[in-house]
Amino acid sequence: TLQDKLLDGLLAPGFDEESCLSRYQSSLYRKNPLHKPSSYLLSRLRSYEDLHKRCGPYTKSYNRTLEQLKSGHNASSTECKYLVWISFSGLGNRILTLASAFLYAILTNRVLLVDPGKDMADLFCEPFPEKSWLLPTDFSLKDQFNTFDQKSHYSYGNMLKNNILNSSTETLPSHLYLYLAHDYDDQDKLFFCDQDQALLRRVPWLVMKTDNYFVPSLFLIPSFEQELSKLFPQKEAVFHHLGRYLFHPSNHVWGLITRYYQAYLANADERIGIQIRVFDTGSGPSQYVMDQILACTLKEKVLPEVDRSRPIVSPLGKRNLKAVLITSLSSGYFENVRNMYWEHPTVTGEVVGVYQPSHEEFQQTQKHLHNRKAWAEMYLLSLTDVLVTSAWSTFGYVAQGLGGLKPWLLYKPENQTAPDPACRQLMSMEPCFHAPPFYDCKAKTGIDTGTLVPHVRHCEDMSWGLKLVDGHNEL
Amino acid sequence: TLQDKLLDGLLAPGFDEESCLSRYQSSLYRKNPLHKPSSYLLSRLRSYEDLHKRCGPYTKSYNRTLEQLKSGHNASSTECKYLVWISFSGLGNRILTLASAFLYAILTNRVLLVDPGKDMADLFCEPFPEKSWLLPTDFSLKDQFNTFDQKSHYSYGNMLKNNILNSSTETLPSHLYLYLAHDYDDQDKLFFCDQDQALLRRVPWLVMKTDNYFVPSLFLIPSFEQELSKLFPQKEAVFHHLGRYLFHPSNHVWGLITRYYQAYLANADERIGIQIRVFDTGSGPSQYVMDQILACTLKEKVLPEVDRSRPIVSPLGKRNLKAVLITSLSSGYFENVRNMYWEHPTVTGEVVGVYQPSHEEFQQTQKHLHNRKAWAEMYLLSLTDVLVTSAWSTFGYVAQGLGGLKPWLLYKPENQTAPDPACRQLMSMEPCFHAPPFYDCKAKTGIDTGTLVPHVRHCEDMSWGLKLVDGHNEL
Ligand SMILES: Nc1nc2c(ncn2[C@@H]2O[C@H](COP(=O)(O)OP(=O)(O)O)[C@@H](O)[C@H]2O)c(=O)[nH]1
Ligand SMILES: Nc1nc2c(ncn2[C@@H]2O[C@H](COP(=O)(O)OP(=O)(O)O)[C@@H](O)[C@H]2O)c(=O)[nH]1
Repeated sequence: TLQDKLLDGLLAPGFDEESCLSRYQSSLYRKNPLHKPSSYLLSRLRSYEDLHKRCGPYTKSYNRTLEQLKSGHNASSTECKYLVWISFSGLGNRILTLASAFLYAILTNRVLLVDPGKDMADLFCEPFPEKSWLLPTDFSLKDQFNTFDQKSHYSYGNMLKNNILNSSTETLPSHLYLYLAHDYDDQDKLFFCDQDQALLRRVPWLVMKTDNYFVPSLFLIPSFEQELSKLFPQKEAVFHHLGRYLFHPSNHVWGLITRYYQAYLANADERIGIQIRVFDTGSGPSQYVMDQILACTLKEKVLPEVDRSRPIVSPLGKRNLKAVLITSLSSGYFENVRNMYWEHPTVTGEVVGVYQPSHEEFQQTQKHLHNRKAWAEMYLLSLTDVLVTSAWSTFGYVAQGLGGLKPWLLYKPENQTAPDPACRQLMSMEPCFHAPPFYDCKAKTGIDTGTLVPHVRHCEDMSWGLKLVDGHNEL
Repeated sequence: TLQDKLLDGLLAPGFDEESCLSRYQSSLYRKNPLHKPSSYLLSRLRSYEDLHKRCGPYTKSYNRTLEQLKSGHNASSTECKYLVWISFSGLGNRILTLASAFLYAILTNRVLLVDPGKDMADLFCEPFPEKSWLLPTDFSLKDQFNTFDQKSHYSYGNMLKNNILNSSTETLPSHLYLYLAHDYDDQDKLFFCDQDQALLRRVPWLVMKTDNYFVPSLFLIPSFEQELSKLFPQKEAVFHHLGRYLFHPSNHVWGLITRYYQAYLANADERIGIQIRVFDTGSGPSQYVMDQILACTLKEKVLPEVDRSRPIVSPLGKRNLKAVLITSLSSGYFENVRNMYWEHPTVTGEVVGVYQPSHEEFQQTQKHLHNRKAWAEMYLLSLTDVLVTSAWSTFGYVAQGLGGLKPWLLYKPENQTAPDPACRQLMSMEPCFHAPPFYDCKAKTGIDTGTLVPHVRHCEDMSWGLKLVDGHNEL
């Protein structure tokens, strides 16, 4: 139905279908979603789309605001304000930060523009009607993007540190850099304080570089609180909705996804995703990781046990077919699981097929096909019925978020040993913010931001991280 | 139906089903066979079974004949005569020679006994009712088997050479070795002459070592001619019938076959087998082999072409699912084909899944699981609808023969170059005899044995080899 096709109204109708087949076809591959977007979110998305149409690249307003930037004048009130997102880090990280930036743009009535980096345009469709979200290549500050880092003099944090700015400053520059990557410092983190937000509000161009899903901390900023609770009555669905709204695989990637799905997954009665991300040095497979995967999946009955004593088990009733989709940089875990179900029958008589789309051996952030495959694999994982993910991995967060799944999380192994228990089910499908601030903006002291409100909690996979949960979710 | 279950009467009813599930289940996996065994073959199989029951291991007759062997007496007329087959060479070779030996046993009213070697008992069920086909481990000559080679003094060929035997010899030993491996010499090859067969007929114990499918040359022995044409009115179905009669995968192997089939092949609309055997030194994959595989399969429309210019092709009508089963010692060819169909759509919109059960990297003739997998893979190839095989490989011959398939044969590459044409369809499903004799037993001169009768021809993959074809088959 049209309702399904537009993901319960999340998507605007009227896009050209051919140029982005995934946009209106994704509902054919996803289960009927459990999580419906609020009507307020829908209306805010529609008004964002209007804003983007009015202020997007090469519109009159854009040109005017750009003039101000070029002339080097100080900030003055403009019709449109912008948030420029810089491509940074692995693809999972980029997807999460882009969703965070988009939410921040909605909350602050900014227009989101995306630095396409090497391959954003190759990976994703345009999410907004009529006007592109890609930053024009002739954008004047573009040359400075690669000099922009933690130490950059023009970052908001460093300008505060050097007393070039403070919250009572009258004249503000027409642009500011926000450095929100994992190694940002205390001044950079003041971004998450209301008084700083008041200042930032007056700057027409904000440029943001981050590798973190900072949404949980937006929920702790008082001035955003009410709006956020109207937008997301279900807290754990923030990325689920924003991700499905923003990230439509390009036709190239959609080809990878749909061909793989049809060839290997479509005929199964149940689909199981296992995302294996090992942050160890050294190329896998490692026995302790393998042990952990089996300990988790067998104990939690994600996968059926095998019978090593009998060559064949006759099934009772219909033979259930399970397809296990494994993603990993190496192929060893896949081979191990596949051989196990080839060499031995399951105790239940179920039939288990095991699949791994690619084994790229190492992370190659700059190769086109490599990132297409990485994106296709995250998406394919999101189409499974039961998901197992690895601690700390944004790759897994994207899959769980898009799929609306609460995965079994493989705890991070320490000292090359499989942890016990091997895994647990997550309390929410939200990604974890890995480097949140621990600061009380009013009291100007440190504080544990994971205990302030019931819906912002510490993550299961990273004790200092923060994630959104719903009230009824138990840690 | 029962008719199907017994493969048109090829199999005897009444075996215990549990101990060998494949025997009566194989018909569930094979298409209705095109090739029916003759009723004469069926009656000869039943009378062979009676003979085996009467003369098999530890029967009175067996014990008596064994006495004669132990006492070292010369040959005298015995109730039962035996053909002992020695395990030798790769598994494909073993299967072909065992079928050859069985046919020779039928033609000469001998009882076939199988030296189990390292793993024959692990790989195959007993083919004959009640009495085992395995040579008892206490068989008196067993210790000599591993000393038995081309130079062995007690081989028939060497005894002729050394004038210990000739066709007019009156007293014969109670046993003789027949050395019929690829490097056998002119005297050994006299095995294929009628006057020598007359002598051999009087020896109670024949022990045979071979790595060749010597059936085609049996068809050139005048005294066997009539019987063979009654047994096999369809000449190209000799191995097809004998193979399906003799070789029932053990439950361990049947588990491998059925699990793989159900997990990966059962749901496809069409199954395609590609057997890649590279006899080059050096571990693959080689570009010229890859080129040849694609040249053959695409040109002969075994596999659909891909469209490299478009990311997605919408299918016309129902989406056909093809499963491609690749077997090879290395994984490179598989990865290449699989990625091709992942990265690009087919021009027809068909969906192609590509599978490889194992990649063992090198031949390991002595490992149990290794040979189980090799046997499972030959069998799985035989369950495909369209088959592509590699020149010179007995592994491929077994698959085509059991499956009743005329495969596309990949010609042997020379000088590391893909041949042109890359392949051709075989004129018959029969295996090729790689080292046939070229001798006219009457005229005692050399002769081209591939031109004597219409049904024994040179092979497509080996110009000096011989194979059976039917009259209407065209070279
Ligand atoms: N194709 C593929 N690439 C992977 C996989 N795991 C990691 N990568 C690559 O490594 C990058 C990891 O960065 P990111 O996506 O940010 O995930 P994270 O490092 O796990 O948080 C991915 O973008 C891929 O390029 C995998 O399972 N499959
Ligand atoms: N599993 C597996 N083993 C193979 C394959 N190709 C060769 N082998 C191994 O190598 C041996 C080759 O010997 P054989 O079966 O006589 O076939 P041939 O050498 O091709 O005539 C097999 O028995 C296997 O042990 C393959 O595709 N799969």
